[in-house]
Amino acid sequence: MSQNTIDRLISLFSKLPGIGKKSAGRITYHILDSSPALAQTLANELTGLHQAIKRCSICGGFTETDPCFICSDPGRDKSVICIVESAQDMRVIEEGREFTGVYHVLGGLIAPLEGINPSNLTINKLISRLHTDRVKELILALNPTVEGDTTALYLQKTLKDYPVEISRLASGMPVGGNIEYIDRLTLSRSFRGRVKI
Amino acid sequence: MSQNTIDRLISLFSKLPGIGKKSAGRITYHILDSSPALAQTLANELTGLHQAIKRCSICGGFTETDPCFICSDPGRDKSVICIVESAQDMRVIEEGREFTGVYHVLGGLIAPLEGINPSNLTINKLISRLHTDRVKELILALNPTVEGDTTALYLQKTLKDYPVEISRLASGMPVGGNIEYIDRLTLSRSFRGRVKI
Repeated sequence: MSQNTIDRLISLFSKLPGIGKKSAGRITYHILDSSPALAQTLANELTGLHQAIKRCSICGGFTETDPCFICSDPGRDKSVICIVESAQDMRVIEEGREFTGVYHVLGGLIAPLEGINPSNLTINKLISRLHTDRVKELILALNPTVEGDTTALYLQKTLKDYPVEISRLASGMPVGGNIEYIDRLTLSRSFRGRVKI
Repeated sequence: MSQNTIDRLISLFSKLPGIGKKSAGRITYHILDSSPALAQTLANELTGLHQAIKRCSICGGFTETDPCFICSDPGRDKSVICIVESAQDMRVIEEGREFTGVYHVLGGLIAPLEGINPSNLTINKLISRLHTDRVKELILALNPTVEGDTTALYLQKTLKDYPVEISRLASGMPVGGNIEYIDRLTLSRSFRGRVKI
């Protein structure tokens, strides 16, 4: 069958997050239509990726050097740790340029139905950081979902005897949002989390 | 800067069609989170792509053998040529398993503002196919857009002296569509193209 190479690439692309069968086709044909240099550059970057990128032994984020440039930056406030689900969430927060502390990547959220229990997360590593560093505050930057809520509750209970303040990112209506289109749960949370002005 | 490899891959992915900056990030982190085998398989397929895939010397579609498996299939009706903008459109029509003729890839649509003139398309090649093969019908499977309409009109005028029937795919309301949400142009075209029942 003549289309094998194309089919294989389309099938590979369609397994990536957010890419359906149609997009995978569009991408593959775009690469075919482009100069071979595009395919080769992509191939080279992919080949080198896992060799170049490791996990930081302190925060668990992806990095080319260990510790990562955030953990090894003397200008970052090591007494404030932002707890995130994944290295990608860490990147999103970094792009916001608001947070000046350090991070801890949990590696997931508690979801018993999916087989993700507290022991699958890097909670022990977090506790040892609390022992080693003088951590004053943990900011839970977890998704406002059932899994995020469960994980936040679990961390709150597990760490209640440590002299550390625990907070969680505010949840409510997105900036620029419209009350008319807000779902009931978000609206209810906005009410409960209302702020004096 | 520690994130170079990741940034480069995100930037490469975000240049592919339909992938924005956020999706590119999600894809890159997904690949990082997955086993290195995924990255390596993708890299290998991309490396081999342009070597394995050529353009068919008859229809202009992508193929591993020349002529392609459609042009060299004795079961396909060579007297009916379906004219498409791109090799990808050819693939979409093939997946429909409705059409049993052969194809001709124009390589674009006439769009003077974008610098695409008739001479940039494979129209001369099409004309020589009309001379060589006993072609009875040309089906224009071009997008129902200004560019598609322009190209259809141009082909109609250019080929008017050839003993060949020219038709164009029906344009109108999509199956399962809702009149309430149909745009004015599509509705007008549905009226003009109404079919007796």
